[in-house]
Amino acid sequence: MFTARMAYLDDNFLLSTPLAAELYHGIAAAKPIIDYHCHLPPKDVAEDRHFENLHEIWLEGDHYKWRAMRANGIPEKYITGTASPWEKFQAWAATVPQTLRNPLYNWTHVELRRYFGIDDLLEESSARKIWDEANRQLRSDPGLTARGILAKFDVEVVCTTDDPADPLPHHERIRHDQLSGDAGKFTSKILPTYRPDKAFALADPVAFNAWTDRLAETAGTRVSKFDDFLEALGRRHHAFHALGGRLSDHGLERAPALECTHEQAGAIFDKIRSGNTAPDAAGQEQFRTFMLIFFAGLDSASGWTKQLHLGPLRNTNPVLHGQIGADAGCDSIGDAPQARALAWYLGRLAAAGTLPKTILYNINPADNYVFATMAGNFQDGVTAGKLQHGSGWWFLDQEEGMRWQINALSTQGLLSRFVGMLTDSRSFLSYPRHEYFRRILCDVLATDVATGRLPDRPDYLRRLVADVCHDNAARYFGF
Amino acid sequence: MFTARMAYLDDNFLLSTPLAAELYHGIAAAKPIIDYHCHLPPKDVAEDRHFENLHEIWLEGDHYKWRAMRANGIPEKYITGTASPWEKFQAWAATVPQTLRNPLYNWTHVELRRYFGIDDLLEESSARKIWDEANRQLRSDPGLTARGILAKFDVEVVCTTDDPADPLPHHERIRHDQLSGDAGKFTSKILPTYRPDKAFALADPVAFNAWTDRLAETAGTRVSKFDDFLEALGRRHHAFHALGGRLSDHGLERAPALECTHEQAGAIFDKIRSGNTAPDAAGQEQFRTFMLIFFAGLDSASGWTKQLHLGPLRNTNPVLHGQIGADAGCDSIGDAPQARALAWYLGRLAAAGTLPKTILYNINPADNYVFATMAGNFQDGVTAGKLQHGSGWWFLDQEEGMRWQINALSTQGLLSRFVGMLTDSRSFLSYPRHEYFRRILCDVLATDVATGRLPDRPDYLRRLVADVCHDNAARYFGF
Amino acid sequence: MFTARMAYLDDNFLLSTPLAAELYHGIAAAKPIIDYHCHLPPKDVAEDRHFENLHEIWLEGDHYKWRAMRANGIPEKYITGTASPWEKFQAWAATVPQTLRNPLYNWTHVELRRYFGIDDLLEESSARKIWDEANRQLRSDPGLTARGILAKFDVEVVCTTDDPADPLPHHERIRHDQLSGDAGKFTSKILPTYRPDKAFALADPVAFNAWTDRLAETAGTRVSKFDDFLEALGRRHHAFHALGGRLSDHGLERAPALECTHEQAGAIFDKIRSGNTAPDAAGQEQFRTFMLIFFAGLDSASGWTKQLHLGPLRNTNPVLHGQIGADAGCDSIGDAPQARALAWYLGRLAAAGTLPKTILYNINPADNYVFATMAGNFQDGVTAGKLQHGSGWWFLDQEEGMRWQINALSTQGLLSRFVGMLTDSRSFLSYPRHEYFRRILCDVLATDVATGRLPDRPDYLRRLVADVCHDNAARYFGF
Repeated sequence: MFTARMAYLDDNFLLSTPLAAELYHGIAAAKPIIDYHCHLPPKDVAEDRHFENLHEIWLEGDHYKWRAMRANGIPEKYITGTASPWEKFQAWAATVPQTLRNPLYNWTHVELRRYFGIDDLLEESSARKIWDEANRQLRSDPGLTARGILAKFDVEVVCTTDDPADPLPHHERIRHDQLSGDAGKFTSKILPTYRPDKAFALADPVAFNAWTDRLAETAGTRVSKFDDFLEALGRRHHAFHALGGRLSDHGLERAPALECTHEQAGAIFDKIRSGNTAPDAAGQEQFRTFMLIFFAGLDSASGWTKQLHLGPLRNTNPVLHGQIGADAGCDSIGDAPQARALAWYLGRLAAAGTLPKTILYNINPADNYVFATMAGNFQDGVTAGKLQHGSGWWFLDQEEGMRWQINALSTQGLLSRFVGMLTDSRSFLSYPRHEYFRRILCDVLATDVATGRLPDRPDYLRRLVADVCHDNAARYFGF
Repeated sequence: MFTARMAYLDDNFLLSTPLAAELYHGIAAAKPIIDYHCHLPPKDVAEDRHFENLHEIWLEGDHYKWRAMRANGIPEKYITGTASPWEKFQAWAATVPQTLRNPLYNWTHVELRRYFGIDDLLEESSARKIWDEANRQLRSDPGLTARGILAKFDVEVVCTTDDPADPLPHHERIRHDQLSGDAGKFTSKILPTYRPDKAFALADPVAFNAWTDRLAETAGTRVSKFDDFLEALGRRHHAFHALGGRLSDHGLERAPALECTHEQAGAIFDKIRSGNTAPDAAGQEQFRTFMLIFFAGLDSASGWTKQLHLGPLRNTNPVLHGQIGADAGCDSIGDAPQARALAWYLGRLAAAGTLPKTILYNINPADNYVFATMAGNFQDGVTAGKLQHGSGWWFLDQEEGMRWQINALSTQGLLSRFVGMLTDSRSFLSYPRHEYFRRILCDVLATDVATGRLPDRPDYLRRLVADVCHDNAARYFGF
Repeated sequence: MFTARMAYLDDNFLLSTPLAAELYHGIAAAKPIIDYHCHLPPKDVAEDRHFENLHEIWLEGDHYKWRAMRANGIPEKYITGTASPWEKFQAWAATVPQTLRNPLYNWTHVELRRYFGIDDLLEESSARKIWDEANRQLRSDPGLTARGILAKFDVEVVCTTDDPADPLPHHERIRHDQLSGDAGKFTSKILPTYRPDKAFALADPVAFNAWTDRLAETAGTRVSKFDDFLEALGRRHHAFHALGGRLSDHGLERAPALECTHEQAGAIFDKIRSGNTAPDAAGQEQFRTFMLIFFAGLDSASGWTKQLHLGPLRNTNPVLHGQIGADAGCDSIGDAPQARALAWYLGRLAAAGTLPKTILYNINPADNYVFATMAGNFQDGVTAGKLQHGSGWWFLDQEEGMRWQINALSTQGLLSRFVGMLTDSRSFLSYPRHEYFRRILCDVLATDVATGRLPDRPDYLRRLVADVCHDNAARYFGF
């Protein structure tokens, strides 16, 4: 073990033994990033957005920081309101020292170091200096545009999150630039992910119908009957595939699990389309069940990977939801039982032969073992690691959460087959999260070796690190 | 890190680095205690109770110890039965060595050291000596009366737990003594906490009606209609306020969450009052929902802090409940889902503009992240740390539980805004729990610094320790 | 602390201080094993099975390994299919290096060392050598037969898991061999455990009736009415008792908790018997409740210990279930609430005076505290540790799971009264799990001493280790 006291964010941060340092610096750090799930705006990449200031790139859309500021008693004006970018940054700077032990504290400073080379601690007294210096770099450094950052962090693949009704013009443009040579050295693949959340949102039939119309238009078809709807969704799946998409994603409080025939789903659909009539709770559950099975069929037929993000309670604060809308930072961890419905759903797909590669993400850390063992029920002996227990997500995307997930997966499945970390972020400044994950992975392995829990076999350890940091994902997703 | 082996309950107990020791001994230990939630009997303080012996002060009402004795095969006679105080103490002494690794083991010895200066380990062979010595001190040392102990442990504030129907004569008397100078150097504020559990207990209408009559009498009013009932509760809230009360408290298995109009609640109330008719389960849930919203209105209007203690299963053992009644040590941790109902309730208050400062306590450690993230949904940008994730409570009030809560709060909220520890105890011997918490807090921070997870900024660390140990609570509650 | 790096599976594996090593090597390692819950086939012991090869003894029935192989992309042919034993072993050998950090990795190598003296790491390149050497020993070493292994590992008692309808010929034969002197030095007690799962399986009335007929035949009686059924079950309980059985066991997703009279249960029974009519869901729950209370009565009257294994989801994968049947490795951790129903059930027994000694095992680690505190509600002050929080089970039978259980039990109950570890295994190669548990126990205690959390009292520590490793179980079960 390293016994000397470490400096803050030391080069060997999170690495508690020499072997951990060796694995991280020698193997993990050099691997490109496959960011197979994030919320970066493809428009920013298409336009190679230049950011004016730290507010734009750091605060504008980050509901993690908003939550911290609210908890610190900062008025909404300085968070999402009418204050100037500099005022908002000041408010954030005043909040930062109050975030000690929150992952935001270390992310903030790792990001300042890795992107801007700024080692100062952010606080009220350093805010102006950091603001000026970072903004200067943002305006002048070609490595700090949207594309510049992806190149700088060696991001091989970015999977954005997209609505099937979205015609994906930005993905088209990026691909065009790259094929035509206009993108220069920018070679990151920017691929769409198929996330049809709106196909599940039956509580508001007017919105559902408007979305269905948009979907039809994008798909270049007309949707009058239920089969037209499925046809349009299938066309968009193909279109995403043509642009390199290889993943779908669903964000749900839990898996729906109420048997529903094609006829029943069609009848529900017809009522919504013809009369803007929302089905009752059971009807919604049935329709969602049908659709989730249908989408698995599309994924399975195309060799895609399905992601299930299960468990959050969303938009719990009606006041902030009314003021700011969704994704305002008023979501939290739910505790509804997950196991039976999820087992039913996966079993249904297995029986039908349409179970795609699937990643199961739980939001509640109390469910880590439930999800890790669930994945083990449906491995098929063909694709190694076909069912994955997804990495620590959202509230779990921090050291404690990552360690728990790594341990749950290790004890209940095969860590060696894990496709590893993603950012799940809206921000171009989030790539150091991969660094975090990689450091923790190396530390965990090396600690096991140091204590006689793993054999000191460099070949095993190096391969495992390389696989989990990059190579497994490259093989598994088949971009 | 300290690498030498530590003596049992060493001066640096729980402090694993020199910095931890420095923070604890230099800052934390010197802070007065604000015990904002406990179950100390105000009568004992009013009368400045002198304890006859260790049984009276240690065993008489401590269901933690009772549980340990029962698990050790001690007959009930020696626990709550007819055996003499000395016999009961002997039985406890014989149990103590069987409690190794249970928090009772260390509490027992910390309490013997801090209150009586006794370093011996309690076991059968030392029981007589310890009994005699401690009893001698109890009878002769003015620092070991109810008031003496509060003074000795520098307890600035004690918030007792009280029924709105209680006329609070003891609080009056204490205040009178202090204002008149009769209390001498005893300056601890002893404040009532408004805990209207009986307003929720509709399953027994006869008891409800008797309590309502007592409430009316205490409030100096008559209760015939529902509005009279609310009026009486409001008057008592004011009376508590006049005596310095600034907190309310509710102990519930989960938050009730079934919409209920004023008319519906009134109709339920009328049926209970007129015919001793208990509402059905849905009616009870509705009435409870109405009342919990009503009480939040009182708290919000008065700038109070509401406490929600959620999750235990109570009185599960019908045999012991029949013999001894409630609080017999037959309560345990429940696992009912909490998140949706709690989100609904808090959202309802936020929408109505009546969300008071609120502390959310979970009894199930699997819910730590659920509660910590829930608090984050309702921060209002006015009061720093308005919604609090409460400290480890009851079964979680021990090292493992405290560390989990500190970590959950740290990663999901702002540790820096935490109002910190309380005792939640019926015993005057429980004040060393603050010492535990403070040691753990200092250890957690210092370990993060030693490993490069936090910057070595003494100003930050000292402020955080001072804030969490005392200063935040002083600011937040506004006593 | 030991600061030097340890070799893989070092002699001091899992022991991080000199005191831990002293406790383990000096006390724990020398204690005989009381394996009070396992799934070893009594036939193998009766016949003193000689194993042909590593496949037979290691892979044939081990669904833990099957899951790992499926997750590694190994086709079912090489797991449970038609491939030869050697081919299956090769597939397992290729999987082993992919299981790093899974408990299988260390179990594999501990088992190779302890049974065969083989220190090589198992991987593709070493597979042939290990296969040949281990098989040679299996064929020639009398210490590697079924009885030889039990003797070699000093297994004092083995409690198998048996159906009340089973006439237990193998237990009879073993006992006969031992009484007649034919068993030589083989003195392990092989005792049946009463596990009437089929009395709860009402969903398939045809199977239920066939089983009831078999039960009647084994009991030497006729079952036409419900009371005959109860009588037959009671007779078998006596027969198990006569063969030394002192435990029952139930595996349930959760405790049933729907009040049911004798008449109601009888009516449900009559319908199943007369018309093969399955009761509806509520009827099944009622019948199960009645039976679980009835079985407790048998246990209580005979001074037995009841085991409740609660929480798994079983046979979730319809494809593998269809191919291979139950116990195919398609079970996982459930998350249904447990506390209320379990409290109701135990409370019901306490009120009736028929609560036997009971061990509560939870499958979901999020329930550790729920179960540990539940046990504390029903201690009766007669039998020390009457209600036990069972050791880490199935998915929790690994270092992380064991530490969690030990900590939950320690903080919420009396570790000193714990009956300790069991194997719960189908394999004769699983006895090193006791070694794991004992190392962890010693490590936990010694670490607490080193850090001042426990007093350095060798008498306490040695007794606690001896009690938890062996002596408590010997006293508690009364074999």
